[in-house]
Amino acid sequence: MSNDITAATNQVKKWLSNFNAAIERRDFNQAVNMFEDDCYWRDLVSFTWDIKTIEGQENIRLMLELTVSHIKPRQWQILGEVTSTNGITESWFTFETEVARGKGHIRLKNNKCWTLLTTMTELKGYEEKAGATRSQGVNHGAFKHRKTWLEQKNQEEAELGYSKQPYCLVLGGGQGGIVLGARLKRLEVPTIIIDKNQRPGDSWRKRYKSLCLHDPVWYDHLPYLPFPSHWPIFTPKDKIGDWLESYTKIMELNYWSSTQCTNAYFDQATKEWVVTVNRDGETVVLRPKQLVLATGMSGKPNIPKFPGADIFQGEQHHSSMHPGAEQYKGKKCVVVGSNNSAHDICAALWENDADVTMIQRSSTHVVNSDTVMKHLLGALYSESAVEAGITTDMADMIFASIPYKILPSFHIPIFEEIAKQDADFYQRLEKAGFLLNFGEDGSGLFMTYLRRGSGYYINVGASELIIEGKIQLKSGTNIDHIKENSVVLTDGTELPADLIVYATGYQSMNTWAAELISQEVADKVGKCWGLGSGTTKDPGPWEGELRNMWKPTLQEALWFHGGNLHQSRYYSQFLALQIKARCEGILTF
Amino acid sequence: MSNDITAATNQVKKWLSNFNAAIERRDFNQAVNMFEDDCYWRDLVSFTWDIKTIEGQENIRLMLELTVSHIKPRQWQILGEVTSTNGITESWFTFETEVARGKGHIRLKNNKCWTLLTTMTELKGYEEKAGATRSQGVNHGAFKHRKTWLEQKNQEEAELGYSKQPYCLVLGGGQGGIVLGARLKRLEVPTIIIDKNQRPGDSWRKRYKSLCLHDPVWYDHLPYLPFPSHWPIFTPKDKIGDWLESYTKIMELNYWSSTQCTNAYFDQATKEWVVTVNRDGETVVLRPKQLVLATGMSGKPNIPKFPGADIFQGEQHHSSMHPGAEQYKGKKCVVVGSNNSAHDICAALWENDADVTMIQRSSTHVVNSDTVMKHLLGALYSESAVEAGITTDMADMIFASIPYKILPSFHIPIFEEIAKQDADFYQRLEKAGFLLNFGEDGSGLFMTYLRRGSGYYINVGASELIIEGKIQLKSGTNIDHIKENSVVLTDGTELPADLIVYATGYQSMNTWAAELISQEVADKVGKCWGLGSGTTKDPGPWEGELRNMWKPTLQEALWFHGGNLHQSRYYSQFLALQIKARCEGILTF
Repeated sequence: MSNDITAATNQVKKWLSNFNAAIERRDFNQAVNMFEDDCYWRDLVSFTWDIKTIEGQENIRLMLELTVSHIKPRQWQILGEVTSTNGITESWFTFETEVARGKGHIRLKNNKCWTLLTTMTELKGYEEKAGATRSQGVNHGAFKHRKTWLEQKNQEEAELGYSKQPYCLVLGGGQGGIVLGARLKRLEVPTIIIDKNQRPGDSWRKRYKSLCLHDPVWYDHLPYLPFPSHWPIFTPKDKIGDWLESYTKIMELNYWSSTQCTNAYFDQATKEWVVTVNRDGETVVLRPKQLVLATGMSGKPNIPKFPGADIFQGEQHHSSMHPGAEQYKGKKCVVVGSNNSAHDICAALWENDADVTMIQRSSTHVVNSDTVMKHLLGALYSESAVEAGITTDMADMIFASIPYKILPSFHIPIFEEIAKQDADFYQRLEKAGFLLNFGEDGSGLFMTYLRRGSGYYINVGASELIIEGKIQLKSGTNIDHIKENSVVLTDGTELPADLIVYATGYQSMNTWAAELISQEVADKVGKCWGLGSGTTKDPGPWEGELRNMWKPTLQEALWFHGGNLHQSRYYSQFLALQIKARCEGILTF
Repeated sequence: MSNDITAATNQVKKWLSNFNAAIERRDFNQAVNMFEDDCYWRDLVSFTWDIKTIEGQENIRLMLELTVSHIKPRQWQILGEVTSTNGITESWFTFETEVARGKGHIRLKNNKCWTLLTTMTELKGYEEKAGATRSQGVNHGAFKHRKTWLEQKNQEEAELGYSKQPYCLVLGGGQGGIVLGARLKRLEVPTIIIDKNQRPGDSWRKRYKSLCLHDPVWYDHLPYLPFPSHWPIFTPKDKIGDWLESYTKIMELNYWSSTQCTNAYFDQATKEWVVTVNRDGETVVLRPKQLVLATGMSGKPNIPKFPGADIFQGEQHHSSMHPGAEQYKGKKCVVVGSNNSAHDICAALWENDADVTMIQRSSTHVVNSDTVMKHLLGALYSESAVEAGITTDMADMIFASIPYKILPSFHIPIFEEIAKQDADFYQRLEKAGFLLNFGEDGSGLFMTYLRRGSGYYINVGASELIIEGKIQLKSGTNIDHIKENSVVLTDGTELPADLIVYATGYQSMNTWAAELISQEVADKVGKCWGLGSGTTKDPGPWEGELRNMWKPTLQEALWFHGGNLHQSRYYSQFLALQIKARCEGILTF
C-alpha cells in the first residue's frame, strides 16, 4: 500500500470510528460537526426506512435524533481500498443496525464528510440463501410420501390466490414487476404478479417493430442472472421479451398472465387490500397486505385532443399502439412528438418507404448513443468497466452515491464536453430546424430523465434522417386541427395525412392509482417521479429523491415501482426489503 | 513472490522455452529427452486433431514427427502462478499453433515433464464473439427494409432444413445435444438438433418422479450461462428440464422437437449424410455434412429376457419407462438391478408404501453422496472451491490434466480413506447381505463410471433402507423364470409380484448407430465408452481415452457425444472446434 493510500485509509478509519463513538454516546453535536457545511446523507432504507437524501447539518442532526436510538447503528468497517483524488477521499464501508446489515460509501473533503450513502443490504435472520447457504434441492434419506419439487410447485400455484393469500400483489409484469417478484421470491415473501398480456415479455414484444433497448447491456442486467457475455449491446425488443419470459420461469415466479385488475381498495379494518382481478375470464378476489403498482414508470397514454380528430379518414393511434412501419409504405405519415418513440417510429417509417413528417412541438434534448456510452455510462457500465473489475453491484452503488442535488454539477461539464465534441452534429441538426436543448441547466440526459421521464432522444440514426430531410420536420408548431385527409398546423401549413401517430408520451404513474383504486387515493399520494427541481414538468418544492418511488407513500401499503432496467434492478432490492420487513413484523420507523 | 515460487517459475519457463526451441529445430531427440521415462501427453485436438493420451517417450516422438511440421506449435507462455508441492511443479500455459490458440497444463518432476496437457481453445479467425467483440444488436443508422432480430430468426427457422441445409445435425436434444448446439451456434455453424420429445428438457421430465441429479450444482454448469448462486445443490429432474428448455431458447438453438430420425446413410459421392426425419408428422430429408449421435451415453435399454415374462399378469417395464412410485401403494414390487436407478426406484416405492424387493445380481460400488462431495469433487467442484477462486473452466482443466492411465493411482488412496471413514456404514450394508465393491482395483466411483458407465450407487438414502430391511434384498441371485403372479429366483425363492422393474441398464451407445444408420457402420465404429482397462464390461486393449467419444470415428463425419453434465460441458468444446474446423475447410490432420 502506498503512503497516500495508507494515510487516506487511516483518515476514513478514524472518521468512521469517531462517528460511531459520537452516535453511540448520542453526541449529535459532535456527529454533525464531522460533516462539511455543504453535506448530503443519502439513505436507502437503513436509517430512515425510507429513500431520502438528508441535506445539511441541521437535517442530519434531526434525522439522527429521530433514528439512532432504535436503529442502533454500529460496526462501521472499511470495505476494499480507499482512494484519494483531488482532495476527495472515497471509501466503501459496511455497517450494521439492530435488524439489518448495510453497505455504504463516503466522500471526505477537508477531513469532513461531504457525501454519505447508507444502504440496507439484508435483514438479519432473513438473508437470501445462496452459495454456501443454498438449498440442498432434495432431502437425502427416505421419507414417506415426500413431495417432489414439481408437486410442491404445482401445489403452490394451485393454492396461492385461492386458499392462500399472497402477502404482496404486484400489478404489472413488465421488467419492474418481474425483477421485484424475483427479489421477493428469494426473500420468501408469497407474491403474485399479474399482467394483462398472454406471456411475460409481451410488454416489450407488443411495442413497435424496430424497437431495441436504447441502454447498453452492461446497464440492463437483471439481478441474480446476468446476461451471458455474448449478449448484444442493444437488445432487440423481442429478445428482451424472451429473456424476461425465461427469467420468470427460472426464478419460479407466481406470474398470472392474461390477468387484469378491475378494482382495488384498502380495507382499513383488516389492513388488507381487496383486489378484484379477471384471470383469463375468471373473477378472483385477492387480499394481499401490500400492493405494488409496477405498471410502468409512465402512466396512461397521453393523447392530445385535436379538433377534427373524429372526422379523420385515415388511421390514428398513440405510439404505444403503433404496430410497426411496414404497412405504411407509400403512405403520408405525420408523427406528433420528438422524443425517443417519435424518432424511432419516424425512422422505421422512412426505412419502409413511407412519406413521414415529424411535428416537433417544443425543444428536445438529443445526444448520440455512442457519446452516451462513452461519456455518461462508460466509466461504470461498459466492457472496460467490467475489465477494470467494476461489478454491476459496485457500479450501481457508485451511481447511487451521488446525491441528486449535486448530480447536475457532475453532469454539466460532461454535457459541455459532449456539445463541443459533437458540435458539428448539433449544428447540422439545428440547421435542419430542429429545436435543441441540453436540459434547462445544461445537465443533459440523465437529469432530464429523472426530472420528467421524457424530453429526449438518444440518437441511433433518426437525427441524420432529419438532417438530410428524409424525415421532414415541422418544428415549433403543433396540430391546430385535423381534416378528413390532412392535418392543419398552428402555422397554417396543411399536411396531407393517411396516418397520425401521437408520440405524445404518458401521464403520471399515479393515473394508474386513480384508475385501479380511486381518484382520492391518487390525490392523496400525489405526483410520482421527478425530483421537485422546478424545471419543466417537474414542479417544486425540492424533494431530493424521485417522488413516491420504491418507498412508503401517503397511502398505507401502496408502493410504486418502475423505471429503466437499471432502476428496476437497483431499487427493487430496497422495495423488497421494506416489504419483507413488514411481512416479518419488523418495526419500520 | 516467494523464492520457491520464483525458482519453480524459472524452471517451467526454461522447460517451455527449451521445448519450444527443440521442436522448432525439429530436434525430437532433445524434445523427448525432456520428458520423464514414465510420461503422458494428453492432447485435446490441438496437436493431433483427436482426443488422445500419448504415453511414453517413443510414442511422443512419433506424435511430434507426425504433427509438428504442419501444426507449427509456438508461443509457449506461462499463465498464472506456478506451484510446487512434494517435488511436483505445476503450471498453466498458453500456446499457439498455425491455426489455433491453446491452453495447457504441465507437471514437472526432476526437471522433466511427467504430464502434459494441451488443449485447443479457439481457432484463429473464428473466435467466439463475446465481451468486447459482442454484436451491436442493432445497426445504428437508417437502412431501407432492414430486418429485425425476430424476422431474421423466423427466416432462419423457416429456411434451415428446407431451402438451406444445416452443416451439422445433432440427433438427440438432451443435455449433450443442447450444449453442443449452443457451442456450434456461438461458432456460427448452421446446426439443427432433433429430439423425439415435445419440449427440450423432456428427457429429464419423463424419468421416474423422484429423480434428482446425483452430481452437485458446481459440477453441472452449462457453458455460457452458469446456474445462479441460489441454485440448489442437487437439481430435481423437472427443474433441470425447465432449465434446459430456457437455455435452448436463450441460446437461440434450432431445436426441432417432436422429431424422430427414421434413417440415415452417408452418401460417399456427395460426402453428405442423407437423414430422413419425421418432424411432427412431416417427412423431411436433411443433408448435413456432419452427424452427431447425442442420444445419451447409454444406448438402447437392456431388457433381460426371462422365461415366462410373456405370461406375467402384473406390470413390467424397464427403469427408463418407470412412471414413479405413487400408483404402486400396497403392491408387491420386484426391482432387478442394484445401480443408481434401481436404488432410487426402490426407495421411492418404499416411500409410497409399496412392498419392495431388490434383486442384486452382482456386486455394486456404493459411496455416500456427502462423501463424494467431500473427498472426490470438493477440491474442484464445491462452494469452497468457488471461494478459493477455482472457476469451472479451471476445475475442468485440472480434472482433464490427469491422464486416465494414472488416474486410478490418484483415486485408490481416496477410496481407501473413504472405506475407512465410512467403515461402519459399509459393514452394516454388507451385514444386510449387500454385495459391495470399490472397483476391481479399488479405484472407486469415477473410474467405474469411465470404464463401464454403470455399476455404482451414489447413496442418497436407499442404502439405509436396505440396512434396515425396509427395502428387502435378494443378492447374488437373479430371476430364473417368471410366473403369472410371481418371480422365481435362481436360488429357488419365489417372490409374489405385481410389478417387475428392470433396472438393468443400457446397451452401448453404438446400438443407436446400428438402429439409425446400419449394423455395418455400428460394427465399423465399434464399442463406445470405456478405456480398454481390461476390467468388467471394459475389455482391452488399452485405449487411454473414452472410445469414440467426441473425436473422429472410423465412419467419416460421424461423431458420438454424451456423458454427464460435466463431460457434456467440457468435451463439447473440442467436438465443436473439430466440426467448426471442417466447416471452414481447415485441414484437420
